[in-house]
Amino acid sequence: MTCAMNAGEINAFLEKEFPQIHINGKVFEVTEVKPESVTIHFTPGEAHLRPGGTVSGPSMFTLADLAAYAAILARLGPVALAVTTNLNINFMRKPSPGNMRGVCRILKLGKRLCVLNVDIYSDASSALVAHATGTYSIPPH
Amino acid sequence: MTCAMNAGEINAFLEKEFPQIHINGKVFEVTEVKPESVTIHFTPGEAHLRPGGTVSGPSMFTLADLAAYAAILARLGPVALAVTTNLNINFMRKPSPGNMRGVCRILKLGKRLCVLNVDIYSDASSALVAHATGTYSIPPH
Amino acid sequence: MTCAMNAGEINAFLEKEFPQIHINGKVFEVTEVKPESVTIHFTPGEAHLRPGGTVSGPSMFTLADLAAYAAILARLGPVALAVTTNLNINFMRKPSPGNMRGVCRILKLGKRLCVLNVDIYSDASSALVAHATGTYSIPPH
Amino acid sequence: MTCAMNAGEINAFLEKEFPQIHINGKVFEVTEVKPESVTIHFTPGEAHLRPGGTVSGPSMFTLADLAAYAAILARLGPVALAVTTNLNINFMRKPSPGNMRGVCRILKLGKRLCVLNVDIYSDASSALVAHATGTYSIPPH
Repeated sequence: MTCAMNAGEINAFLEKEFPQIHINGKVFEVTEVKPESVTIHFTPGEAHLRPGGTVSGPSMFTLADLAAYAAILARLGPVALAVTTNLNINFMRKPSPGNMRGVCRILKLGKRLCVLNVDIYSDASSALVAHATGTYSIPPH
Repeated sequence: MTCAMNAGEINAFLEKEFPQIHINGKVFEVTEVKPESVTIHFTPGEAHLRPGGTVSGPSMFTLADLAAYAAILARLGPVALAVTTNLNINFMRKPSPGNMRGVCRILKLGKRLCVLNVDIYSDASSALVAHATGTYSIPPH
Repeated sequence: MTCAMNAGEINAFLEKEFPQIHINGKVFEVTEVKPESVTIHFTPGEAHLRPGGTVSGPSMFTLADLAAYAAILARLGPVALAVTTNLNINFMRKPSPGNMRGVCRILKLGKRLCVLNVDIYSDASSALVAHATGTYSIPPH
Repeated sequence: MTCAMNAGEINAFLEKEFPQIHINGKVFEVTEVKPESVTIHFTPGEAHLRPGGTVSGPSMFTLADLAAYAAILARLGPVALAVTTNLNINFMRKPSPGNMRGVCRILKLGKRLCVLNVDIYSDASSALVAHATGTYSIPPH
């Protein structure tokens, strides 16, 4: 199993095709692409915080969704625009202040659907902050 | 069953306590509070779009999460800061360009957990765009 | 919008094609098929109970899954065997002893995927016991 | 981190407290309890099958729910009866005929809620058949 795109190629693709995700600054960056997992780092800005300095739930959802999207790009390349059909996320611990990362693993890559998991961590701790499972529809390619 | 806060009070509370949600402009506004449902309107800005002008999944998650939070405020008042523990969202149709709304109904309000549904629509169509079910933890109050 | 099968036809189809669901007695029966919803009644037996006489979670999952399957049959007819790809269920209240029902509404019937909701009630109460959202894969037909 | 109960103790507890799960024969058995995971084996009977000999979705839900329950028992002991509040399950591959197993890992064990994952496999293959994430309410203990 090889990867169709590396981290730099995915970042360049996202920047070109999804400029909106960087509209508040470049806060998301794919840092590692391996056959079994893709890691995205997230540097929260003011817009991503909640009272007390904690990172908001919607920001973590964005991280999960982007990690999933990047993992599908890594596997299939930029041939097809996958679409989120279902995402289930459990928020387990208040994230520590500071940067976070999402680690995505593909559970199944079928012809029409891709199912994957994303684990979300604070850089400051090894405890799992949130866990998501998502299903993405893969257009014919 | 009466409401502890009306639409204006919830908007004022969110603006004061969660100024971050308005950091890209005031795009979310509670427009209707009834005992059985709470409606939030969403005026997507550039940051909420995806290629082709469609509203992004994370923006709809934000709408669902905020609608749920507002519905709990409407019922309990500003005594307790509910925390999202689980949110499951199905994206069913590409939203029409333009404004959207989320309609939240509480399925169960227990002492410790609140379970609710959010239906998301484009203003331009009556077809359901997305459907979310969420669980919120209610702190002792 | 019309229905491709009525309640009697769906019950006969299930009995013929899925005899296993009746192996502990005929506990599930489609009782109403309308264009907007399908209702299944459930008469729990000893095998479906938990200590204290409450109906088990897996039994309610079975009810939800069967209600969804029946709703797809009602719409498409027996041409295609839909397959569950995702089911998310929230258990909200302990069911009252006695019979239950599941009411399924299709949220989206696409070419490849069907998304639907199931509300589960005890016959003895109007309070919602459980709520499920499911996605089913529709084979080419 | 140690375990409060071992496999034999959990099996004995389930048999005594939940005799209903064995009403169609003893098909579920806890086979391994480790601090980081609990494994349950499942020997499907006629009642658990679907046309073509495949194991039904509700049977896999039962396996997931029981694996989760056993994992909480392993950690807390028989002091508290955990209750399923949410379970999200993705079915990814048709299981191979024959026995199956569920492997449960606790993601978070809080005072009030426990969140965990269950991976479901056919014994005949290493490919993941289904993946569940569940939330259980822990009564005061």
